[in-house]
Amino acid sequence: MQNNSVFKERQKKVSRWLKQEGIGGVLIEDAEGRRNKGLRYLCGMPSDAILFIFPEGDSILLPWDVHLAENFAFADTIKAYTDYSRSITSALPGVLREFRVEAASIEISETTPYPLLEELKKALPGVRIECRKGGIDTFISDMRKIKDATEIELYRELCSITDEITEDLISRIAEGTISTELETAMFIEGESRKHGGEGTGFETLAAGPERSYAIHPYPAFTDAVFGTSGLSIVDFGILKEGYTSDVTVTLARQPLTPDQQEVLSLVQEAHDLAEELLKPGTGTKEIALRVDEFFKARKYSMPHSLGHGIGLAAHEAPTLRSLDQGEEELQPGMIITLEPGLYHPRVGGARLEDDYLITESGVQRLTSSRIVRIP
Amino acid sequence: MQNNSVFKERQKKVSRWLKQEGIGGVLIEDAEGRRNKGLRYLCGMPSDAILFIFPEGDSILLPWDVHLAENFAFADTIKAYTDYSRSITSALPGVLREFRVEAASIEISETTPYPLLEELKKALPGVRIECRKGGIDTFISDMRKIKDATEIELYRELCSITDEITEDLISRIAEGTISTELETAMFIEGESRKHGGEGTGFETLAAGPERSYAIHPYPAFTDAVFGTSGLSIVDFGILKEGYTSDVTVTLARQPLTPDQQEVLSLVQEAHDLAEELLKPGTGTKEIALRVDEFFKARKYSMPHSLGHGIGLAAHEAPTLRSLDQGEEELQPGMIITLEPGLYHPRVGGARLEDDYLITESGVQRLTSSRIVRIP
Repeated sequence: MQNNSVFKERQKKVSRWLKQEGIGGVLIEDAEGRRNKGLRYLCGMPSDAILFIFPEGDSILLPWDVHLAENFAFADTIKAYTDYSRSITSALPGVLREFRVEAASIEISETTPYPLLEELKKALPGVRIECRKGGIDTFISDMRKIKDATEIELYRELCSITDEITEDLISRIAEGTISTELETAMFIEGESRKHGGEGTGFETLAAGPERSYAIHPYPAFTDAVFGTSGLSIVDFGILKEGYTSDVTVTLARQPLTPDQQEVLSLVQEAHDLAEELLKPGTGTKEIALRVDEFFKARKYSMPHSLGHGIGLAAHEAPTLRSLDQGEEELQPGMIITLEPGLYHPRVGGARLEDDYLITESGVQRLTSSRIVRIP
Repeated sequence: MQNNSVFKERQKKVSRWLKQEGIGGVLIEDAEGRRNKGLRYLCGMPSDAILFIFPEGDSILLPWDVHLAENFAFADTIKAYTDYSRSITSALPGVLREFRVEAASIEISETTPYPLLEELKKALPGVRIECRKGGIDTFISDMRKIKDATEIELYRELCSITDEITEDLISRIAEGTISTELETAMFIEGESRKHGGEGTGFETLAAGPERSYAIHPYPAFTDAVFGTSGLSIVDFGILKEGYTSDVTVTLARQPLTPDQQEVLSLVQEAHDLAEELLKPGTGTKEIALRVDEFFKARKYSMPHSLGHGIGLAAHEAPTLRSLDQGEEELQPGMIITLEPGLYHPRVGGARLEDDYLITESGVQRLTSSRIVRIP
């Protein structure tokens, strides 16, 4: 989907921001234990590299794997990270010296660990290092949350594949050819590739009636039964070109208790209620609060956020969460999920999650997840 | 495997360390974007929680999912993280106030982001917050790297399962019933569960002849051919009770070029050379340097570390790496991998990885990975 001109344009936006902020350069690192999808967004490199961008628009990429970078990434200069011992404290001063960059300040991700920043400051005594909330991470996150036409087109395809797999899975569970959590997860993994996907965007959560009470079941899936009497939840995302969908389907097989019936109805109602509120200008917290109040009035409570943006990460901006101090308005081009859910150790769990595109005039639902009642 | 007494004992060790260091408490958090296996090691909670330990030995766990914590975790007190809005800046002052802890100082992970630490300092003006290299993370990492008898027993089982799956996979590839990267990865995932595992400890890397040049192929596996003419690499770990093995097998199918034959021989020689050096007292950097020199003398170079500890994380202490400034001695109870590899865009890649237990008298190889030549 993406090509060098897309990455060049994104890098230019960062350059313009640097000029505007009066900052001499930015360093974006993705490494084990400190993953940062901003790297891939800005240059196409899937992981394990440092990207420098400077105010005049030039970019330098230091990938761990140069061969992989040559196939995937765009930057004006590509140089092996191993030339700097794969250490950020060597790479930052090394690049500035070698490429004769005279920067009075360098901006770095707000996720940079405290002692590491102290080390970087020591390694670069003459340079101010900016590490702040509302800095480069927010700027990139703001870019990422408004999808462009190519990203939206990809999402339409991704969500259509997701729906096909969902319906196929439901049929197999109903007829009994899939009956364990493991079979469910493996089916999705395999079908994704058959439909041209790259697998799943996160570990599929498949929790049969005995484990569906958990918000995040651990392990994500086991060889326990799935889709048998009671409530089963499957939460998955189809991955393509680095982007993931994110849906959840609840399967309810008879016989069901009155409590289980009630939980299913409430989750469906919350889903429909929230969906009606989606449009440009509505506040993310406002929607989440409405759903919390809906559950509260019925003596239930939802232990997680209502929804979130999706993209190169399974969870990205904006977050639809009632606990947040701030809130933001929905904007055209945002692709978000709604995932109301209720959980109880005895009753089990139910969650229903769909993906939505916020448009100029309102909203389009991109997926067709549903609560499935099996006789 | 583990039970509450194991966790209680580990928590006590942290308490003793706090007393010794004169620190009033420690906070260990595992959250999205900031995973910390120390949480699971100390209390059994797989993820998404904050654990407090105090010098007098009492512990408080704030899990996101209380039901899951009640099934998995041990702490003196378990209280919902949502009571503190799932925010560390609310939870830290909240817990100290509520449980009437009078601490002059609190230690926190060295991976804590710089701006977050600044916020915590503001939220707790009277308390000194320690965030340092060589602090709590190093203490826990030092505990984790020496496996106890129960962990070693688990690893014997885990490695034996890993070997069975490896051999089964090799047969299927040789006879042609498995012939794609996807089939390879799915086979391992399914077999792990059949053998009582919890799946894989990290995303299986299966790279056929066209993709094996990459250190970390992206995507991890595709529907490309695997085990066909040339060099294919599969790198995987079997997960059980949170612990993972980590092995790599290279499959070489005829016809092979002289360059490919040479790469295979060199990787095998490097593997055997490094294995002979494993014993208590040998330096981790010393071994890695010996292998680097071996390759260098033959005009090759390895673009990654030689090996690493395994446990609750696929990569943990110690690291066998020639670039490190410091080095440490191998000690009895360490479980580590050796994974020499060479990669070339035209030739392809070869890597051979086994798991080893360092013993009082030397070393025991726990797995039997091999370079497989298929006619």
